Amino acid sequence: MLVIPRGFKFSGISCGIKEKGGKDLALIYATQPCVACGMFTQNKFKAHPVLIDIERLKEGEAQVILANSGCANALSGKEGKEDALAISRQLSSLLGIKESHLLLASTGVIGKRLPVEKINKSLPLLIEKIKEEGVGDAAEAIMTTDTFPKIYFIETKIKGRGKKSIRIGGIAKGAGMISPQLATMLCFLFTDACIDREALGESLKTAVEGSFNRILVDGDMSTNDTVIALASGLARNPRIKTDSDNFPLFAESLTEVARELAKMIAKDGEGATKLIEIRVKGAWDAKDAHRAARSIARSPLVKTAIYGGDPNWGRILCALGQVKVKFKPHRVILKIQGIKVFENLEPVIKDRKELINKLQEKKVLLEINLQHGHHRTVFWTCDLTEEYVKINAHYHT
Amino acid sequence: MLVIPRGFKFSGISCGIKEKGGKDLALIYATQPCVACGMFTQNKFKAHPVLIDIERLKEGEAQVILANSGCANALSGKEGKEDALAISRQLSSLLGIKESHLLLASTGVIGKRLPVEKINKSLPLLIEKIKEEGVGDAAEAIMTTDTFPKIYFIETKIKGRGKKSIRIGGIAKGAGMISPQLATMLCFLFTDACIDREALGESLKTAVEGSFNRILVDGDMSTNDTVIALASGLARNPRIKTDSDNFPLFAESLTEVARELAKMIAKDGEGATKLIEIRVKGAWDAKDAHRAARSIARSPLVKTAIYGGDPNWGRILCALGQVKVKFKPHRVILKIQGIKVFENLEPVIKDRKELINKLQEKKVLLEINLQHGHHRTVFWTCDLTEEYVKINAHYHT
Repeated sequence: MLVIPRGFKFSGISCGIKEKGGKDLALIYATQPCVACGMFTQNKFKAHPVLIDIERLKEGEAQVILANSGCANALSGKEGKEDALAISRQLSSLLGIKESHLLLASTGVIGKRLPVEKINKSLPLLIEKIKEEGVGDAAEAIMTTDTFPKIYFIETKIKGRGKKSIRIGGIAKGAGMISPQLATMLCFLFTDACIDREALGESLKTAVEGSFNRILVDGDMSTNDTVIALASGLARNPRIKTDSDNFPLFAESLTEVARELAKMIAKDGEGATKLIEIRVKGAWDAKDAHRAARSIARSPLVKTAIYGGDPNWGRILCALGQVKVKFKPHRVILKIQGIKVFENLEPVIKDRKELINKLQEKKVLLEINLQHGHHRTVFWTCDLTEEYVKINAHYHT
Repeated sequence: MLVIPRGFKFSGISCGIKEKGGKDLALIYATQPCVACGMFTQNKFKAHPVLIDIERLKEGEAQVILANSGCANALSGKEGKEDALAISRQLSSLLGIKESHLLLASTGVIGKRLPVEKINKSLPLLIEKIKEEGVGDAAEAIMTTDTFPKIYFIETKIKGRGKKSIRIGGIAKGAGMISPQLATMLCFLFTDACIDREALGESLKTAVEGSFNRILVDGDMSTNDTVIALASGLARNPRIKTDSDNFPLFAESLTEVARELAKMIAKDGEGATKLIEIRVKGAWDAKDAHRAARSIARSPLVKTAIYGGDPNWGRILCALGQVKVKFKPHRVILKIQGIKVFENLEPVIKDRKELINKLQEKKVLLEINLQHGHHRTVFWTCDLTEEYVKINAHYHT
């Protein structure tokens, strides 16, 4: 049973944007205006829905998110903006809510126009279908090359008066164009916590930093990456502010939800067969830890070796050595699947067969200890397979 | 007919380093000590031959290069250094030249020990076989996953007294772990020009900047990348110094040779079917031009789209927009194969079929005009195919 935060309803239908069919239009509906925050792609070419949301979120309130897959509405010219606004107007009038309370998100092929008429015609059905349990349909409707919908919900008891429980959850999509610079996919987070805008914004930053900024599929940053958080307040807890006792707890819980969704995205990278977790410790500072982990996560040679179940550990150290990270080569220790493979500048594998066997597992753990400081990080990526190439060589046509 | 620079002989044989057989040991032999310069990987984990060469080149003279494929002699522990020195001692005594005049280079799997005995036993045959026409054998013996040997030689008339001709040439290997940070593969350049060390060093910097620093296969920087230039002086031209009239001409010629070899490396990237040339102009400064070109060259989504002959131009702009480069999105113009596809933030493709047809060609040209300054660059890469994944998932085992 999913513990849907109070005050949220969802629906997802097929309206014909995706040529191959399948759900492609999602509605996330709050029963009343929510405190709202967003984080968006840092790509200079931003999709129209991203530009519209950035503008609308300045007020810090929103009630509805309309998201589509199959068309990114990015680099689609001035008409692309008109398309988005025409849909927004129609939805706003059907729901009777302010346009500024309505957010948009699109994902799919870049440079294509949205089929406005198809979408607008489908809005009444989409609205009719909203319900709490519609979250699965909504998660499915934002999928592109994802192989499974990404949904995660938790319930947490908070401290103080009445020991209220708050609920936090989210849905996300990922698969390709995944690189950890701010928000890097679509993710919608919901909570019924009563929280002010600043505290929600700060929590979202922490959550994104600890989740989506630590995953990478192919290192490409999309034009459409969007993370939006809505808080309905219906848990009726004492309002959480940045100086509240419950603020760290809330931020942690939001991070947990975001991290689980992020790991699902990494695991479901285009063509992926394995989830790779990279733990770096002993780094001089947080940036060094991040840079080291990211360079390994991005290396096609590391990713293909892990796909092949090949204990080619030299590629991991090579990827580490190629970025500007402070460390002394002779102090570096590398473990793969818990087995020490390199220390004191010497290969130290005792049982190569055991290592090869452990590399067959669906989750591969790489641990790097730089022994140069006290900072650490965790990063997630996936292997690189022929299937990734197949998917992306022919995605457009 | 190759115009081999006067004073150079070569050989290449199979000595059993490569498990699958094939030539794997190359000797480059100058009949007398040469002015010598080198540029090496910036990876913190440097292979033993790289560390040895850096030390030996401090004197600025060298006469012989011994190179092997099949084993990188990198991250191979203290024994790896001993292995390299044992081979060096043996070769030095056989040839009767100073050890400090002998350079080493290795390429292949990281973390493996060199078969010292096999190599030392093969040295007499390797020496016996040296001849001018041996350059093809030497180029073949440094190949790993390369599909063709990379050789390029030119002859140039220089200005002044007697209008002497000088010859410049080189051999190179590439294929995987190719990323443009300094020298990123093995390349040996030879000239019979009479040139002093400073002028040779400056020319080499220019040449590497305009060639190997502008190619990228997978973005991984090897532990073994090496570019060495040897100048025999046997052209008997007036010695070229950095303030000579002939200095720019020499640097340009060396750059030409390096660039042609670099393009061969990009074209022959692991699994590649197409050479991609990326021209960026209108950049604010040289760094911006480089960053923009490199981001596009590195993007797996761009590389797979081109492999698939898919005019998915949005991915090119997306790769451009994700790096820190100064430009205004509305001023960017993108051409593919000479056809304008994007301008004024609008897609402007008139004939999609023509574009698709032109993308079938073996060479694909991407032109980006940022219209934000006066700097430009050219960059080369290759497409990303299933074959790249196949090669690298199972290279080790």
